[in-house]
Amino acid sequence: MDDTGLISRLGDVVGEANVLVAADAVAGYLVDWRGRYRGTALCVVRPATAAAVSAVVRLCAQAGVAMVPQGGNTSLCGAATPAAEGRSVVISLARLNRVRAIDAANNTITVEAGCLLQRVQEAAAAAGRLFPLSLAAEGSCQIGGNLSTNAGGVQVLRYGTARELTLGLEVVMPDGELWDGLRALRKDNTGYDLKQLFIGAEGTLGIITAAVLRLFPWPRAKATAWLAIAAPETALRALIALQDRFGPALTACELVSGVALGLVRKHIPGPHPTLVDSPWHLLVELSAGGDEASLREELASFLASMIDDRRVADAVLAQSGEQARRLWTLRESIGEAQRIEGPSIKHDVSLPISRLPEFIERADRALVEAFPGIRMVTFGHIGDGNLHYNQSRPTAGDQTLFLAAQPQVNRVVHDLVDELGGSISAEHGIGQLKRAELLRYRTPLEIGMMRAVKEALDPRGLMNPGKVL
Amino acid sequence: MDDTGLISRLGDVVGEANVLVAADAVAGYLVDWRGRYRGTALCVVRPATAAAVSAVVRLCAQAGVAMVPQGGNTSLCGAATPAAEGRSVVISLARLNRVRAIDAANNTITVEAGCLLQRVQEAAAAAGRLFPLSLAAEGSCQIGGNLSTNAGGVQVLRYGTARELTLGLEVVMPDGELWDGLRALRKDNTGYDLKQLFIGAEGTLGIITAAVLRLFPWPRAKATAWLAIAAPETALRALIALQDRFGPALTACELVSGVALGLVRKHIPGPHPTLVDSPWHLLVELSAGGDEASLREELASFLASMIDDRRVADAVLAQSGEQARRLWTLRESIGEAQRIEGPSIKHDVSLPISRLPEFIERADRALVEAFPGIRMVTFGHIGDGNLHYNQSRPTAGDQTLFLAAQPQVNRVVHDLVDELGGSISAEHGIGQLKRAELLRYRTPLEIGMMRAVKEALDPRGLMNPGKVL
Repeated sequence: MDDTGLISRLGDVVGEANVLVAADAVAGYLVDWRGRYRGTALCVVRPATAAAVSAVVRLCAQAGVAMVPQGGNTSLCGAATPAAEGRSVVISLARLNRVRAIDAANNTITVEAGCLLQRVQEAAAAAGRLFPLSLAAEGSCQIGGNLSTNAGGVQVLRYGTARELTLGLEVVMPDGELWDGLRALRKDNTGYDLKQLFIGAEGTLGIITAAVLRLFPWPRAKATAWLAIAAPETALRALIALQDRFGPALTACELVSGVALGLVRKHIPGPHPTLVDSPWHLLVELSAGGDEASLREELASFLASMIDDRRVADAVLAQSGEQARRLWTLRESIGEAQRIEGPSIKHDVSLPISRLPEFIERADRALVEAFPGIRMVTFGHIGDGNLHYNQSRPTAGDQTLFLAAQPQVNRVVHDLVDELGGSISAEHGIGQLKRAELLRYRTPLEIGMMRAVKEALDPRGLMNPGKVL
Repeated sequence: MDDTGLISRLGDVVGEANVLVAADAVAGYLVDWRGRYRGTALCVVRPATAAAVSAVVRLCAQAGVAMVPQGGNTSLCGAATPAAEGRSVVISLARLNRVRAIDAANNTITVEAGCLLQRVQEAAAAAGRLFPLSLAAEGSCQIGGNLSTNAGGVQVLRYGTARELTLGLEVVMPDGELWDGLRALRKDNTGYDLKQLFIGAEGTLGIITAAVLRLFPWPRAKATAWLAIAAPETALRALIALQDRFGPALTACELVSGVALGLVRKHIPGPHPTLVDSPWHLLVELSAGGDEASLREELASFLASMIDDRRVADAVLAQSGEQARRLWTLRESIGEAQRIEGPSIKHDVSLPISRLPEFIERADRALVEAFPGIRMVTFGHIGDGNLHYNQSRPTAGDQTLFLAAQPQVNRVVHDLVDELGGSISAEHGIGQLKRAELLRYRTPLEIGMMRAVKEALDPRGLMNPGKVL
């Protein structure tokens, strides 16, 4: 089948209007949202049902054309952008956007891949349930992409990553066969757990078209506080103390450096809450099913004891939902504030939580020595051992010179992460961005095992080539 | 290499004393503990380190001999017993029994496969931490077996199955290569999540030699109650109400039928707690980090409101740890009581939690119609949708006749489970026992995917043949 034949037959399946070929129509699908990767494609296909995805994949497989599944196109690693060369078709899942079912008594929701994450959250909330996956892109990312990249976010501490929130999947295999693995079970030990293969595989083994996701009771009570902290070591001890006292009620524990907070205060319009200056801060949130006033009181009394013991320098407890929202805005605006400040070098790393203080101290020291004046804009999910370990250029420094140093900066950071038993991609995945790093830091045995799995499920290598492996 | 040569070279690796060949020495390794499966083996090898397991596997692979990994040999499905025919070696992991490390600040423990589950719990407790996996065989099962079968137990509701408790693995691959995947990270999105392949694979893809497991804060406060309940539907509503009110503090919710409780009262020496007669019961436990008296009071007040609303017929709240233990003994003695009552037919099934009442009603009705007088000894982990749906023979019925009906009973139960979207093996796995059932209830596509994975990692089919697939 030649390209024209393929495009025409794809039109038969999804309707001509849903096969995009014009340059302006496809442009947005061929570039990632940070503008780092540009690719080419014969066309963009927009099927609306799993059966249509299956038919589309069958045609592409028959034509020997590569397939690039795309959700909200919010990857930070170029995972959803086609390669710059070769014959490929982008398969957009955006029209598979139905909530198929909610079973409140089973605490599950069945959604199609193209549902916006926020839409899944809202559908759950309408049924009195919580879908806890929550991250900055939730208004534009799609749940299929979240599962394909095993997304994390701000509530992993309590609820786990996308993987742990998934009970069942529906997947179109590389030959077009449709696998119905939409089980809604919390325990199922019947052979290999096939869904695990596709979660986090970034579309390289098949296309997720729907999923059964876990829901949770809606937490009626919340208590939110901002803590001023002397050092990462103090933050670690505060985290442990909070977990010991509150267990799973501790649903978020976010680390924010004074430098990161300073950028937010500088660039993001306020009014911002009044907070004491401090080298480090923790944003802490409790959630529970009981009474909000007593939850807030429990947190207040615990924070008071921490201040008495000098474990915490200062603490501000939100007295309303609005005050809590303003504290969260400080945390969530760091990325935007850093963008306004100028281009930056970013790392999404994780470490054993116990090694975080050592990592920050040693990596800071090495970078400041090698790149005088470099500014560390460190923040992240300390409860998960996950740091967004970012750098901005010296205040008076040259931007181009700074960005040219990125490979050396990466090497310092990733080598230390590796030495301390960490991961060079905690929650953003590999995509195109970190393929070389993956090869560098994982053993040949591990790469071989990944390739064996890829070969077993996608022997022709048609699914999202050039990503991950 | 012939058999004698292999045995001799295995002796070089692990010492002659750790290669068992005498009939009486190997007997216990060749039969499962329920006495349903008997196999043969050239020898039983007992390596003491991962490096020795690696060397043993390399020799067996070289000799083309099948390998059967064995932990505590407590499988309920014959997963650890060699086949009755063919050349195989049993590899016992019992001597790999070190706790390699505990990192309390990271909430992780690194243990070798041969550690008894109870030993892992105790090591965690000694560090002020909880390892929550808990099941009847914990004094004799080994953690490697727990991971290889993705064990469940009584606290899955809050803490998840063995899969969700595992952060990293060390595995000897079928060719003897040693994979060090002992990461201690809560987030790591660097390529395919290889450890997922080996968890629940029942030793058919490689041999787990060590693992990094999640720990949790020690729950200082507990509150335990026994509820008398009218029907499964009422139990389901009580579960939902308890989850809405207490969220993750609800760490156990066990369903016990009046018949099951009757068998315990009849066969297990007391004294037993005084409880009202009821067709159904729920054993409920809360765990938290705060004050025990107030946790108990919160539960008491909630139970009182449930009794007022007639959602619960009666409730007994344990006033001490000793009283709580006696309530748990009732639940944990059901298996033993049923054994004393005589042979029984057992099913380990799971369903969407919302379908449990319908399942119990329809399966009970179908079985009582087909097998008059049959006694339903139903209990299980209602919070996970997991029922141990067991049957005892009619009081005056013939035992042999009853057991002969097992295939028909299984068919009724498993067909209904399948119709309602459930699983025929919730937590016990497949082993030898349920291979035919697996083929019956999973689609050819799914079986094909499992076979492709098996072929990719163990192309010669030497790892635990005749199990799962």
